[in-house]
Amino acid sequence: MTFQSKIQPKQEVVLTGDRTTGKLHLGHYVGSLKHRVQLQQQYETYIMLADVQALTTHFHNPGMLADSVRQVALDYLSVGIDPEQATIFVQSMIPEIAELTCIYSMFVTVSSLRHNPTVKHEAQERGYEDLYYGFLGYPVSQAADITAFKASLVPAGEDQIPHIEQARRIVRRFNELYAPVLVEPQILVGERLEGLDGGSKMSKSLGNAICLDASSEEVRSQIRRATTDPARVHKTDPGHPDICTIYGYHSIFRKEGSEEIREQCQKGSISCAACKAMVTEAIEEVLEPIRERRELYKHRTKDIDDILMAGTTKARSVARQTMGEVREAMGIHYFK
Amino acid sequence: MTFQSKIQPKQEVVLTGDRTTGKLHLGHYVGSLKHRVQLQQQYETYIMLADVQALTTHFHNPGMLADSVRQVALDYLSVGIDPEQATIFVQSMIPEIAELTCIYSMFVTVSSLRHNPTVKHEAQERGYEDLYYGFLGYPVSQAADITAFKASLVPAGEDQIPHIEQARRIVRRFNELYAPVLVEPQILVGERLEGLDGGSKMSKSLGNAICLDASSEEVRSQIRRATTDPARVHKTDPGHPDICTIYGYHSIFRKEGSEEIREQCQKGSISCAACKAMVTEAIEEVLEPIRERRELYKHRTKDIDDILMAGTTKARSVARQTMGEVREAMGIHYFK
Ligand code: SF4
Ligand code: SF4
Repeated sequence: MTFQSKIQPKQEVVLTGDRTTGKLHLGHYVGSLKHRVQLQQQYETYIMLADVQALTTHFHNPGMLADSVRQVALDYLSVGIDPEQATIFVQSMIPEIAELTCIYSMFVTVSSLRHNPTVKHEAQERGYEDLYYGFLGYPVSQAADITAFKASLVPAGEDQIPHIEQARRIVRRFNELYAPVLVEPQILVGERLEGLDGGSKMSKSLGNAICLDASSEEVRSQIRRATTDPARVHKTDPGHPDICTIYGYHSIFRKEGSEEIREQCQKGSISCAACKAMVTEAIEEVLEPIRERRELYKHRTKDIDDILMAGTTKARSVARQTMGEVREAMGIHYFK
Repeated sequence: MTFQSKIQPKQEVVLTGDRTTGKLHLGHYVGSLKHRVQLQQQYETYIMLADVQALTTHFHNPGMLADSVRQVALDYLSVGIDPEQATIFVQSMIPEIAELTCIYSMFVTVSSLRHNPTVKHEAQERGYEDLYYGFLGYPVSQAADITAFKASLVPAGEDQIPHIEQARRIVRRFNELYAPVLVEPQILVGERLEGLDGGSKMSKSLGNAICLDASSEEVRSQIRRATTDPARVHKTDPGHPDICTIYGYHSIFRKEGSEEIREQCQKGSISCAACKAMVTEAIEEVLEPIRERRELYKHRTKDIDDILMAGTTKARSVARQTMGEVREAMGIHYFK
């Protein structure tokens, strides 16, 4: 038996990514990053620095993208994405994604985009009344991202379900209109992490996030100030863990111990301070190895650029291959 | 004085093109093609085979594009577009156009596209209720076509005025947001030719067009069957030239003689048959040299492919240059 025969080819493809609008936080970690780290060993993994998608909300300030692209890349390396295993690339450097976006645009209706609940919710959250055309259509561009690499699996948060559904419809329509060259993706839904203010999903723009590069002291102080059940004034007041953000963190970061906390909270036999200290410790266990890896990469800016350039070159060649097949399927491959 | 010092550099840039959805007709000639033939000597001229834009209405049948691209190219050569003077290229082979489309999409509002009167009119004409996203946004893609070549002049029909206005707004917005790298285009409005049925603009899809490759016999018979003033049953019945398509053709193809025809028609001193014969002759004078040139190129399919490939290569390098400047202006030019 030769060495080569032992290699399991990675046949399934994973694609994910993040808008490069600032540092990543624990919500990203729980919702997608930790899955990527696991998946990169069995799957051909592409991780996209979504700078074009970042422009849908930040076109007035693209100057921040150059920093943010490198910041998010450093976050990736810090959580354990291994550039030997996974391909990290820059979206704006893959013109085939723009080409596929334009092609898919032809057969996606405006009303299907208008009815996309995530687009609607985000527009509302950002106070957009008159939507920008690119913002309305970003799910089409996401379908292009995914299909350019023939990804079959997309680890993402539940708010991405409508977009993956849209991508699946686009794939089916394309394959039926032309030829079956595209792959229908599935979503791997990650857990949803509540923000520190208990109001909504953890989000950097809402200021309720624990960043992956937060120091121990920052984490401690952020958790200390986090919203809990207002009914608990004294330690002995019975609490309602289901409305408490901190309890949510227990159930995610201390799965085994969380039932016990629920009972203690309900009985009023634990103080919020003690409860928070336990969750802080569990979060610290997640963040500590991330901090250690960050230290290794932090000053290697040239190496990070090399990783991104190499990843982008590889991603480009895969996307170019797909685009060739798309042209051929459509019969717009004029000159041999 | 050397030879070189006599060369007038072509500093102004013209861009035009046609959707590759079938053969061109006299309406295209009057509205734009004849201007292009004149302009190609003084202007750096780019002429685009708009196959991606063709997909906005023909995505269900892209197979016709390969034929149509070559058919329209043959029409161009036949009307006198000189590939030594003008650059003829294929839109789908310029990925930078798709990239610019995606970037401009970020700051064009959906409502500005919804209120574009030409988009509205075309949607109505085609019976579209639920618009496709790419159809709604084709003016954004046209802005990308024009600006990729920094065109300052676009010879086109009056229905294109709203699109050029949109392109101008995009250029101003881009230059103001980032850096003044894009050029604001002007439209050179061509004449509008009525269709043979007198109802609307000449258009292949409405079946009221005289194609540029029509034979003398076809032209004669098409004009014979064209709608005229229904009040004119007998030669002596006074007519109303202003509601007669044929009179419109006189005013375009027989400028000097048209006043005389108007009077004769109003007085009932000319038969419609005689009036039509005169217009047929004038149209034949336009078409005859086009037919002759078509004979020269008709069987040179390999040469036509070479012209398109060379033109596309040149166009690509210009678009790539613009795209580089756009990235730099936006600060998304990450790796030197
Ligand atoms: S004890 Fe824990 S779960 Fe209960 S309200 Fe306090 S912080 Fe929340
Ligand atoms: S005479 Fe000529 S212009 Fe007058 S109605 Fe007949 S065709 Fe038309």
